[in-house]
Amino acid sequence: MGRSIVVNMLTAGHPVKAIAPTPGDMVNAEEKIVRALAHCNELGLLAVPLEQALASLTISEDYRQLEDCRLVIECVIEKIPVKQAVLQKIDAVISPAAVIGTNTSAIPISFLQEMVSAPERFLGIHWAEPAYLTRFLEIICGEKTGAAYAEQVYDMACHWRKEPTILRKDLPGFITNRLMYAVFREVFALVEGNHISLEDIDRSFRYDAGSWMTLMGIFRRWDYLGLEDLHGMNTLFGKLSNSCGVPKIMEQIVESGARGISTGQGLFSYSDSEASCWAENFAAFNEEIYDLAAEYPAQNPNRS
Amino acid sequence: MGRSIVVNMLTAGHPVKAIAPTPGDMVNAEEKIVRALAHCNELGLLAVPLEQALASLTISEDYRQLEDCRLVIECVIEKIPVKQAVLQKIDAVISPAAVIGTNTSAIPISFLQEMVSAPERFLGIHWAEPAYLTRFLEIICGEKTGAAYAEQVYDMACHWRKEPTILRKDLPGFITNRLMYAVFREVFALVEGNHISLEDIDRSFRYDAGSWMTLMGIFRRWDYLGLEDLHGMNTLFGKLSNSCGVPKIMEQIVESGARGISTGQGLFSYSDSEASCWAENFAAFNEEIYDLAAEYPAQNPNRS
Repeated sequence: MGRSIVVNMLTAGHPVKAIAPTPGDMVNAEEKIVRALAHCNELGLLAVPLEQALASLTISEDYRQLEDCRLVIECVIEKIPVKQAVLQKIDAVISPAAVIGTNTSAIPISFLQEMVSAPERFLGIHWAEPAYLTRFLEIICGEKTGAAYAEQVYDMACHWRKEPTILRKDLPGFITNRLMYAVFREVFALVEGNHISLEDIDRSFRYDAGSWMTLMGIFRRWDYLGLEDLHGMNTLFGKLSNSCGVPKIMEQIVESGARGISTGQGLFSYSDSEASCWAENFAAFNEEIYDLAAEYPAQNPNRS
Repeated sequence: MGRSIVVNMLTAGHPVKAIAPTPGDMVNAEEKIVRALAHCNELGLLAVPLEQALASLTISEDYRQLEDCRLVIECVIEKIPVKQAVLQKIDAVISPAAVIGTNTSAIPISFLQEMVSAPERFLGIHWAEPAYLTRFLEIICGEKTGAAYAEQVYDMACHWRKEPTILRKDLPGFITNRLMYAVFREVFALVEGNHISLEDIDRSFRYDAGSWMTLMGIFRRWDYLGLEDLHGMNTLFGKLSNSCGVPKIMEQIVESGARGISTGQGLFSYSDSEASCWAENFAAFNEEIYDLAAEYPAQNPNRS
């Protein structure tokens, strides 16, 4: 995800120092970044000319490059000792005015911020892939994060083509993951207990929830429906899955080595051409659906 | 919802006998149906000329009108004695070849089908509002429903501009409601416990889940993401809300008399012009988002 965030920063016109501490990262990173930037350019997403964006990138193994950065974004793997080692190296070189954002989605911000010398300038920045195309961004405060630094990142993020949300509290899973995992918990229980096909569930969700979600969100959907029917809450909440742990079907698939679209085998299977279709299609659809929603007059009074 | 289903049947070119047993229903029903049909005509959704669709409608208080119908759709309020009285009146007059569909979303199909003389020809047909625009449709089998009758309604529904799903088992909430109520359970717990604003939650969900849902559905999304990260399931499932019953915030709002967009007050508040915007916008957005998704090549191999 580091590459994808680098691309997002470059599209916004920021100078970027990318630190690639793992041997081998340097080799592929630049080529992939250049390709993604060219793609952004085709989509009209660059705030600056392509050459200028390309010239704003420095890739290095040397953490001292970070000394004059305003914002340092850590996005190494979700292992505490690795995070700790990297955060210490960052902490040792950065300016006292810098803000550090971690891309973790699994480790509490309040825990990680104890690893740096200025915990008030430490926060979570949670992206969705591909970071240079998606609009979603959660900015998460740990217990010691200064609100002013969250606001500062919020203001920057508005220049990254994001619709950011600040979470004042460091909840496991933040907002969106909690909501989607609530769906995942229920949906795997449905599949395991009731022999409903994956295709049927996907079709049903795409053609119902999909039809209003981007336009309305959840609470406005209730307002739209009229707030008359609380019966569903009363009767259904108690019947939903409360299960814990990884569903069996997922365990089996992952143990088999299937990795979804990238390997052609996952919950569904994919030919090479189908697989490349899905990857390209999401990038474009993600862009178009917001353009579509933004055309609706009702949308505008509610945009931040 | 009866009106909205009548409009859907008329757009598909079916002759429709609408029974309006409640005094007063007759007065408004025709005008509203004619207006909705004209709207469908503007959107290019009529399978037959507007005049023919209008001429195919009979509204009556007399159940005997139903005697030659192939499919009878019951959509009275969700009260068992009312359902029972209406189903008995239907049962007394229809042809032995007719299929009865109930629009219930709260009462088990297996329970209701005992109220008619041919339970094998009885099933659930679950729509989303407005029924003449939305693509979603669940066809639900009770314990005694004959599979052939579910298939028959499925085939018809394909001519109603639906993407139908057959549920072989009569689960409380069917599929989509279970999934969405899983989100609702979690989202109200987040609001009640953590002082996150409704706006922030809506924004976060619209800009994340909204960006892929209509294109991919849930399982394909996992394949897209690569099936590598089961950590979230392992750690988050056990931290999600397992609460039962209506959330306090909803109880309070509903007790206050607020009915959302239609009254200008709900979880949010709305000026008259905002309220009419939302109502119109959903109808159009719902149409456009599927047209958008259908343009993507990856979509097509997976359409039924």
